[in-house]
Formats: sequence, C-alpha cells, structure tokens
Amino acid sequence: MKRMTPLSSGEGALLYETLATRLAEAIDSGSVKAGERLPSVRTLSRQYGVSISTAVQAYRQLEDRRVIEARPKSGYFAAAVRPPLPEPRESKPPATARYVVTSQLFLEYFNILDRPDIVPLGALRPDPSLLPTRKLASLLGLAARRHADLAASYSASAGTERLRRAIARRAFDYGCSFHAADVVITDGCVDALNLCLRAVAKAGDTIALESPTYFVMLQMIESLGMKAFEIPTNPRTGLSLEAFEFATRRKGTVKALMLTPSFTNPTGALMPDGNRKALAELCEKRGIPIIEDDIYGDIWFGEARPLPVKAWDKTGNVLLCSSFSKTIAPGFRVGWAAPGRYRDAVAVLKRIGSLFTPPLPQLALAEFVETGGFDHHLRKLRKSLAERQQRLADLVAESFPKGTRMSRPSGGYVSWVELPGKADAVDLFRKARDQSILLAPGPLFTTTGRFKNAIRLNYGSHWSREMEQAILRIGRMASE
Amino acid sequence: MKRMTPLSSGEGALLYETLATRLAEAIDSGSVKAGERLPSVRTLSRQYGVSISTAVQAYRQLEDRRVIEARPKSGYFAAAVRPPLPEPRESKPPATARYVVTSQLFLEYFNILDRPDIVPLGALRPDPSLLPTRKLASLLGLAARRHADLAASYSASAGTERLRRAIARRAFDYGCSFHAADVVITDGCVDALNLCLRAVAKAGDTIALESPTYFVMLQMIESLGMKAFEIPTNPRTGLSLEAFEFATRRKGTVKALMLTPSFTNPTGALMPDGNRKALAELCEKRGIPIIEDDIYGDIWFGEARPLPVKAWDKTGNVLLCSSFSKTIAPGFRVGWAAPGRYRDAVAVLKRIGSLFTPPLPQLALAEFVETGGFDHHLRKLRKSLAERQQRLADLVAESFPKGTRMSRPSGGYVSWVELPGKADAVDLFRKARDQSILLAPGPLFTTTGRFKNAIRLNYGSHWSREMEQAILRIGRMASE
Repeated sequence: MKRMTPLSSGEGALLYETLATRLAEAIDSGSVKAGERLPSVRTLSRQYGVSISTAVQAYRQLEDRRVIEARPKSGYFAAAVRPPLPEPRESKPPATARYVVTSQLFLEYFNILDRPDIVPLGALRPDPSLLPTRKLASLLGLAARRHADLAASYSASAGTERLRRAIARRAFDYGCSFHAADVVITDGCVDALNLCLRAVAKAGDTIALESPTYFVMLQMIESLGMKAFEIPTNPRTGLSLEAFEFATRRKGTVKALMLTPSFTNPTGALMPDGNRKALAELCEKRGIPIIEDDIYGDIWFGEARPLPVKAWDKTGNVLLCSSFSKTIAPGFRVGWAAPGRYRDAVAVLKRIGSLFTPPLPQLALAEFVETGGFDHHLRKLRKSLAERQQRLADLVAESFPKGTRMSRPSGGYVSWVELPGKADAVDLFRKARDQSILLAPGPLFTTTGRFKNAIRLNYGSHWSREMEQAILRIGRMASE
Repeated sequence: MKRMTPLSSGEGALLYETLATRLAEAIDSGSVKAGERLPSVRTLSRQYGVSISTAVQAYRQLEDRRVIEARPKSGYFAAAVRPPLPEPRESKPPATARYVVTSQLFLEYFNILDRPDIVPLGALRPDPSLLPTRKLASLLGLAARRHADLAASYSASAGTERLRRAIARRAFDYGCSFHAADVVITDGCVDALNLCLRAVAKAGDTIALESPTYFVMLQMIESLGMKAFEIPTNPRTGLSLEAFEFATRRKGTVKALMLTPSFTNPTGALMPDGNRKALAELCEKRGIPIIEDDIYGDIWFGEARPLPVKAWDKTGNVLLCSSFSKTIAPGFRVGWAAPGRYRDAVAVLKRIGSLFTPPLPQLALAEFVETGGFDHHLRKLRKSLAERQQRLADLVAESFPKGTRMSRPSGGYVSWVELPGKADAVDLFRKARDQSILLAPGPLFTTTGRFKNAIRLNYGSHWSREMEQAILRIGRMASE
C-alpha cells in the first residue's frame, strides 16, 4: 500500500469517515488486493497523520461495512472477494387455474407493514432520501397557488392533459407510440392495474400471472372473484414463454395475462427483448390482452432502459400501467394506464371508481418531469440502488447459510433469496417479527403455498446500519 | 310605493344594480304587493335621482330576474306570486332484481359532461365560488412545506389519523359514536361506496336501491356484475319502508341496501327520523347491511342537520360513506367510510384498490375542519344554495309547461322535475345538447327505462345569467 497525502476531513464528514472512504476506494480500485493485509493501526496513523483513535474508528467502520475483516491477533485484511451466490431456480407451479384464497399470512404481513418501529427489509418502498421530496413539495405548493380553482372543481376522469402529454412524450423515447388521449391517469399503479383488469375480465375468468408474483395482484384477483393461473417463471428471464404458450393452447382457458416484464416483483427478472416481441405476437394472435406493469421500467442498472412489451404492440392489445411512486413521489398516488383498445372502458371504470385523480399533484409531477431534472434524478437514483443491491448481496453472501441462492436483478428494488434445505420462510418471518424486522416470506407470492424456503429482500428502503444489522441477523437466524 | 332616499352606487355595484336591488327588496318585504303596478321610468328616475337610462336598466334587470313583469303599453308590475309546483309522484318500479346494463344514453351524457362550453344545468357540482378555494389551496401549500416527507412515503391504507379523528368528532355531533380507528379515508365518496359494496357483496348478488337513484351507483353495480333491485321511493320522504320490507321478506333476496337518506340524488328526498330508526332495525334483523351515502348530510336548509341512519345503528351494520367534495374541495378527492363491522374488510380492499389516499390533502382538510371555520363556511354555503333553489323553482314555475311537477328538497344540490303528458326527456336532453345545455334525463337514474318524462336540475353549479336563460329555454323547449 502506497503512502498517501495527509488527510483533512471533507465537507460535513468526520475525519475517520474521510479516511475510511479513502481506504475503501483503494480497495475498490484494486490498489489493495482482496485478502491483502492492511497496515497496523499505528502505521496507518503515521501514514495519514491522524490520531490512533481516528485510525481505529476508520477500520471499525470498514469492518462494519464488510469492506475489511479483522483476524484475531493478525490485524486487518481487505475482505476476500466472494463468488456471487447462485441464482434461484425457475418456478414449477401446478398447471391449473384456481380461485385465490389468500391465507392468514397476508394479514400477518400487512398488520406489521406500517409499524413505525419495524426495519422494512421485507417492504418494497423507495428510501425517501433518494427522492426529490423538497422539490416536489414545493412544486405542489406552487400548483396549489397557481391553480387554486382546481381544488374546487371536478375534473375529467382521464386526468390532466399536461401530465398525459408528458407521459406520452417520455414513452415515445422507450419505443411506445401512444398519444396523450390514449392515457388515463390513475391513483397510483395499483389503481391502474385494477381498472385494466376489470376492463378485460370479469368474475370467474382466469388471469395468467408470473410465479412468484406481486401479492397485491393475487389479492386483486381474489377480490374480483377471478381465478389465477401461475405460469413457470425464470428468476432471470421472467415468464416462461413455452409454458405460457402451452397453457393457452385451448381458446378461452386464459382471459388475460398480467405481468411485470421489467424487474418483476419479487424476483427482479428482466424478460429479454426477443421474448417480449414473441409474447406480444402470441397474445395478439390468441386474443389474450396483456396487462403490463412497467412500474420499475425506469429503474435499470444496465446499458439502456428496457422497452416495454407495449413497444411491440401493433393493435392496442397491451394495457401498459405505471406510476411515479417508485421514481418520484409515492405519497402523491399518481399512476397511469395506456390501455390501448381498452382505453374507453378504463376511463369509464375510472369514473365509476373514484371520478378522477386529484389534478394538483398531477401538475406538480408534470412540471418536474418536463423541467425539473427528472433524468438527472433517475441517474442518481439508479446509481444508489445498484450500489445498495451490491451491498445487500455482500451481506447475504457473508451471513446466509451455505447453499443460499439469490437473484441479482439488473434493476428494480428487490432480490429473491432461496434458502437451502428445509428452511421455513414463514417461521423465519415470525421470528424476524419478534425482533422488529419485516420480511416478505415466499408463500405471499403465490396462491399455491409454494416458495416455502424463499424470501424477498428489499435494498431500496432507507439504508442504515440498522438495516445491515438486520440482514446479518436474518442470515444468522436462517443458519440456525 | 314610498319615496326613497337618493341613491349612490354601492361598493363594486353599478348604480342601476343598486337600484334594482333596492326595488327587489321592497317587493320581497311586501311593501310593494305581488301584481302591483310600479312607477313609470320617468317617475322612478325622479324619485331616486338617477338618469332615465339607469331606471330603464334597473327595470330590465328585474324583468330578467322575473321579479317584475313588463306588460305591453301598461308599464311594469311586481310579478304575481305563483303557488309552488306540485311534487312528483312516488315511483313504482317493477318488483324484480335485474342485472344492470346501462344504455347508450350514459355515454351520451358523460361525453358532454366535461365540455367547457356547456351550461351545466344537468351536472351535480358545487359552484367553486361558494367553496373556500384560496384557503384550501394555501393550506395544501402549507401541508406540503411542513410535511414534505409525506410526498415521498407510503402511508397506512386507512388514512391520516388526524383527519380520521376530526371526522369522528364531527360525526359525534350528529348522533354517530364511532372512533378514528373505525374510519377509512378514501378517494372521494364514490371510492367509499365502491369499497363498501365490495366488502358486503359479490358478483351475482342483489343490491336494493332507491328509485330513481344516483346513476354512478347503477354503473358500479353493473361493473361488479351485481343485480339492482329498485325500491319505490317518495320524492319527499325517500325509500318506501313498506315496499322494502315486503321485498326483503324472503331471506337472501337482497344482499345489501345502498341509499342516500338525506337529500338523495336525484329527487332530494329526506327520509324522516322514524323511518331511519325502523330501517336500521329491520336491516339488522334481516341481516342486510346498509351502505349509507351521507354526502349531502351537511347541506340542510331546515332546522338542524339530519342524523344519518348510522345514528340508530347498534351493531355496526351500517357502512356510512361521505366526503368533502360537496362542502369544501371536490378537486382533493378525499372521502371516507365508517364501515362498522366491515371496517377491516374495507381497509383491505382500499389497500388492494389504490394502497392509500394521498395524505397531504388530508392534512389540509383536517386543518380547515378543525380551525378554518368549517361551520361558518357551511352556513354561508347552505344559505346560498337555498336561495338558488328558490330562484330555480321560480324560473321553472315561470317557464315550464302547465302540469309540471317539481321536488323542493330541504337540502342538497338538485331538484327532480316531472314534465306533463307525453314529454320525452331524452329527446329534450338531445335538443338541449344542441344548444350547449347539459340536462340529466330521467332514464339515467334507473335500470328499467322509466322516468322518461323527468329531468334532474341542479341549482348548485355556478349561477349566472346564462344559467337562468338556459332554464327558461328548457322550459320553452319542454312546452313545444
């Protein structure tokens, strides 16, 4: 390790934090190799011109962050590089549709979801500190002053023209050519999914889903008296096209397909472009509308934003749904649908459902999207999330039992973890709850009781020492 | 007519307007009798020390307002007092439940509802100028500054504690003893009705309704695959208890009752207290939950606020729904339900439906309700609406054909008008549309095609000369 220049603490940072950052950079850049021995505390203190206690604190922080390891009586070493955990396996649901009857487990999960004292490792919620909160609040205040009349008026059910235009314009950049008039603004993405589902299917109809799938989709299907048909899904490439093709050979078996092709919840799978094109064509040919949840589409860590299946839709058969809840302002509850040929049906259902979505937050969002640096914000958000995913993966590799598998999505907010052997995720969920940690156990994501050994972990919530400790604790609990 | 003091124009008013107001007061107070001859223009000009042209303008305005009448070659007379129009008759729907299939007419109506050039005589929307718009917008701005974090967070599905407390506290004053924890905040009243309906019934079930009834209730029932059972309803006293009792003798015929006991839409009927008590008891005994729409409960013109049926509910069988859309801020889309024993089911459906209602508008409303002069505002609002109802009744009496019947509700926003003979309300709706006037024709309010000769008129929208002209024009068209 080369001698470096003496330190002065950076803006807002304590001296030991600045030192820790400098050391971590040296390790990240490879100028200190994995497993290499680090200077003694005394040497470090001399090299950087800091006190012994500052050097100790820096090493402790790096140890907490798993960047270095302390070996008793030998000193500190750069952490060994671990090979990434293997991926979870493709799911194998039974090939039948069934009415959804959600279990007691759903109640248990939702009963603690909003507990203020709980560490939200099993929630899927963006960290407020990653969102442009002050800016949005100030834009809302501005909209309220400028358009006070909108507080006192009924608006059109489809939503504010300006925001619908902004959405259509952005969607054009990712391959979708619909217009403002094709968009219906909704109360978040969940409202959009509901409306689209009700526009294409009724009680008794069968809806095909990924497996595992977002539990609120299961609850929607249950509450509407529909049946769920879970389709085998690969944790990296998403819905199995072969299985879906097979399941839909008999006309009328499946009324609609609802899926999240980009960074699906809970596995984070990303469907390849070729599959998207083939899926759009197959569904069009078989008369099966696709309800596409693209809520994580903007949260990509790779080369470019994934194109929605909608980009291959030539006939209005894809009902694209999204929102601003995972990118800007969950508390505004503004989502949207571009429901293709079902646009009018969705607009009618929107009016019957809640008349219209409040216009003032829509104007604040339109302003932010058009002129507030949305793209700049997204770049920062993606970078933070990618880093946190890496950190989560390191901590899981460090603390979870041997044989654990874990998805490493190229976007989104969550990873899917499969525990080895006879691990019981529901039991783990309850034990974690006793320690004020929220987990999302696998059986929440199916109507068949499978995924008993899986949990969904979230790296997008507020990241803290408490969160890291919680991950390590879960790892230890899973190892017992 | 006594000589009065010379005039100077009042604040903001033109001289002729001040004069017209003075004359109208003299007629209203009885110091000029109905049918009495008024001074000539020349005499008036001398009496009040105004120009001839000012006197002429004052008389013209009073003529437009139907306060006076011009008789060719005889001069001006105080308008004759008309006896109030007779009330519409009790409805007689067929005694069967049926699936709702809304007609083309619904589309025609909603297609023009939001047209900016249309005179909204057939809409049910509060006049923004009667609402505390600036105040609310400023409270929203304040909430956004103070609680910016809420824009970036997910909230609990039941809504903001503070608003739920304020709602429970007010409800206590009108006879309901539920707590904040019993309330679920929703996206307006329509969302509340939907959630409650889905909590108590499923596709195929039969819902009893008033007849005529609010058309969105029919559309909800249609969209959920339920059946509607329309119950005879009196335009003054509301739902016929006898008919409802008879219709529900066989267990299981009716799954739930959804009604608006206070100032129902479209007739404005107010159910007497005795009937409310009896209805609460009957439904409890027969196991039929009551979804009570109380959205107009605060808009009473009589002695005191009507108590909801919920006030007689001892077992949580009444699901009370309301909102702030008809009293404060339609554009905020904040409503609520106090669903009694169905509270948890409604909270779950709320989460599945749109996760939660945005918290910042809830905080602005809570602030207004607690400290912003809500009661003072309501007094002014009720007074204006009562005056406008009187004005509407005068204009209808003046211009509609002989034999017209009209409800004179003691609260709310609308009157129900029955035209004589073979009048065709749908034809009238289309002719009115050609003249950019929106009407709400009777068949919108039933699933049975009845009320062909009825229309709903709204006196709560922005009141203008244009609106008055529209009423007179409709009267003339109906007379042709």
